[in-house]
Amino acid sequence: MNLANMGHFASDIMSFIDKLSGYGADLAGGVTRLLYSPAWVQAQHELQAMMESSGLVTLFDDAGNLFGRLEGDDPADGVILTGSHIDTVRCGGKYDGAFGVGAGLIALSHLRAHHGKPKRTLEVVSFAEEEGSRFPLAYWGSGNVIGHYDVFHVPEVYDADGIGLADAMQAAGFGPGKKRPAKRTDIRTFIELHIEQGVILERERYTVGIVDGIVGQRRFTFEVKGEANHAGTTPMIWRRDALAGACEMIHSVETLAVAFGESTVATVGQLELSPNISNVIPGLAKFTLDSRHADKSKLEALCEAIVTRFQAIAADRDLELSTTEWMNAEPVLMNPELTQKLAQLCSSKGLRYRSLFSGAGHDAQMMQKVCKAAMLFVPSRNGVSHSHLEYTEPEALSAAIAVLIELLYDLAYR
Amino acid sequence: MNLANMGHFASDIMSFIDKLSGYGADLAGGVTRLLYSPAWVQAQHELQAMMESSGLVTLFDDAGNLFGRLEGDDPADGVILTGSHIDTVRCGGKYDGAFGVGAGLIALSHLRAHHGKPKRTLEVVSFAEEEGSRFPLAYWGSGNVIGHYDVFHVPEVYDADGIGLADAMQAAGFGPGKKRPAKRTDIRTFIELHIEQGVILERERYTVGIVDGIVGQRRFTFEVKGEANHAGTTPMIWRRDALAGACEMIHSVETLAVAFGESTVATVGQLELSPNISNVIPGLAKFTLDSRHADKSKLEALCEAIVTRFQAIAADRDLELSTTEWMNAEPVLMNPELTQKLAQLCSSKGLRYRSLFSGAGHDAQMMQKVCKAAMLFVPSRNGVSHSHLEYTEPEALSAAIAVLIELLYDLAYR
Repeated sequence: MNLANMGHFASDIMSFIDKLSGYGADLAGGVTRLLYSPAWVQAQHELQAMMESSGLVTLFDDAGNLFGRLEGDDPADGVILTGSHIDTVRCGGKYDGAFGVGAGLIALSHLRAHHGKPKRTLEVVSFAEEEGSRFPLAYWGSGNVIGHYDVFHVPEVYDADGIGLADAMQAAGFGPGKKRPAKRTDIRTFIELHIEQGVILERERYTVGIVDGIVGQRRFTFEVKGEANHAGTTPMIWRRDALAGACEMIHSVETLAVAFGESTVATVGQLELSPNISNVIPGLAKFTLDSRHADKSKLEALCEAIVTRFQAIAADRDLELSTTEWMNAEPVLMNPELTQKLAQLCSSKGLRYRSLFSGAGHDAQMMQKVCKAAMLFVPSRNGVSHSHLEYTEPEALSAAIAVLIELLYDLAYR
Repeated sequence: MNLANMGHFASDIMSFIDKLSGYGADLAGGVTRLLYSPAWVQAQHELQAMMESSGLVTLFDDAGNLFGRLEGDDPADGVILTGSHIDTVRCGGKYDGAFGVGAGLIALSHLRAHHGKPKRTLEVVSFAEEEGSRFPLAYWGSGNVIGHYDVFHVPEVYDADGIGLADAMQAAGFGPGKKRPAKRTDIRTFIELHIEQGVILERERYTVGIVDGIVGQRRFTFEVKGEANHAGTTPMIWRRDALAGACEMIHSVETLAVAFGESTVATVGQLELSPNISNVIPGLAKFTLDSRHADKSKLEALCEAIVTRFQAIAADRDLELSTTEWMNAEPVLMNPELTQKLAQLCSSKGLRYRSLFSGAGHDAQMMQKVCKAAMLFVPSRNGVSHSHLEYTEPEALSAAIAVLIELLYDLAYR
């Protein structure tokens, strides 16, 4: 193989991304393609047509995941899978998910055209759902593939219009027995290309990032109860101001996260006050905490330090504090063999690359439970994602695809 | 006069308050009597009937203010007025406003029964509006009396249902030419009894408070603009977190207010975030500041210190700060002659009293622009107001009425 020209796949991937973004296009230039919506259904069928015209055998499973298969000489060797997800957040961007699907399709198409039938079977997947945007549950697509979810036992979750997941799935033409069973036991490897959704690669001028792992996440809701009172007639020293307490807490989150070192993030993104009137001292402040770290024990220590600090602040101010943890996802590691191979490939191509942890969740964290998984990131302009402003230089997309092709060649043809 | 028994008027005022609270009563035990609402109209007419059965001559003005008059020997001497307002906040208490109206009615009724016609004319008023609860404007009642507002030039303000003030006034049976012109030039004195709405009298175990003045108020809205970004993929050091900045600012408000000394209050009561999602760094935080002080120059210095501090925090964090001041009411002083007289009366009765500034606004601050004005406070249990939990001991209400009667006797009969 010779891929000296890194921009080789730039026009292919851009025309793929632009074409797909026509399904669910919004006026701002973004995309809304919620799970099982008409735009989503049309996009999956368009993808099916594209896969078939590239010479791949296509298959939908009961959950709506779409696979394009390039069968190898020995199907019993299992499957090398690449791809990403087809769904988007509301008013999302053109690259998130779509890039990984398009990269997989271009890679398999290129390999088939130039090298014919592989020794080991290659597949590209367009997972049904990853974002958790329509229903309050994420990784429905890859979750069905690994057997974490199951179309026969659909969680009772509803979208904003009160439509249940099972009904939405049926309406889109999927569900128990409609297509091939979703659970797979034949996948040996999963490679996912994705935009970084962060600023690290762009700021440090890397072309690609090799994902060492995906950070653990813990999310909490804190409720701080004080006493609502008259803003004019209550002396400062007699106040039990829930917002003043919450602000001291939130300020401490930042300080503690910085103290825990470079790869720690902790965010208060949501806050609600009651009664939320300009001339009334807030009696109640309710806010969320999203904390992430690549190291489980450090994440635990961070959360413990934060909660301990909150309790001290609440006690000092005679405020009641209640704590609810509603998410606890452990950090996961990508397969070291694959990440090393990716590093060698990047190196040999003279690409500027670095290793990094993903601060966002991805299908690869589900897939790594059942197979060797790896991820390759491309830079996101200004770190923006989930917005019509998402953008990555076509040359970076192309370089990542070139690396993917070499890796798949290595895994499937050698 | 002999009012040795301080509880003399307890049953009168409690039966008045309970009766009035039947108009606009809510299930929690509170009252909602918004300006010109049916409950408000019924309450004013009930009050008119009560005034007439106490031998007072009643008059409505065009704005809906209700007066009960006990004419003196020489009407040219002008009018000694007492009373308060009839409107309430949504789900307000039984005492706020109603106590002052009831106290005035009981006082005039008592004086007429025991002393007959006064030398100088006495009137009790039930002002149409003070709270600013239905429309975004306050003191509509007393404002019309002093000529600050005028039913011929109604401000274009609307309630939550989109009904304009002028239309609501017409629907309630008031408006230009409907009753007596609202503006008065014959009022020489105004005495208002009111609940404290704060905790000072209760905590320090005083029966009554003599109001030296009403604090100045300045209110602001601050908008802090940062950059909304992914909570998982944006390192702490590269964030422009609008909430983190706002929290540092709000924390500084408290510190500065305490540093400015005992009679300073500053409150952030309202805060809104955008996008307000748990896994997105807030890009925008918008919050109010309500700052009050009895001394105009100290209030100015406080606000300047706060804004300067905010600007420094915004600059440190690379956040944009925009500042809007939407209220600037100067502190006002009550009439020293009247406050001294009230102190003498309280003293001679052996009442535990203290002087204090009102942290809340009152009709007396409008009236003091055109006449001698004074206020007497009674304790509020737990400092609570604007709630069905409002409560004052009947003995304190009665003691304040006894003082009012002596003052009015002094002013009108001697």
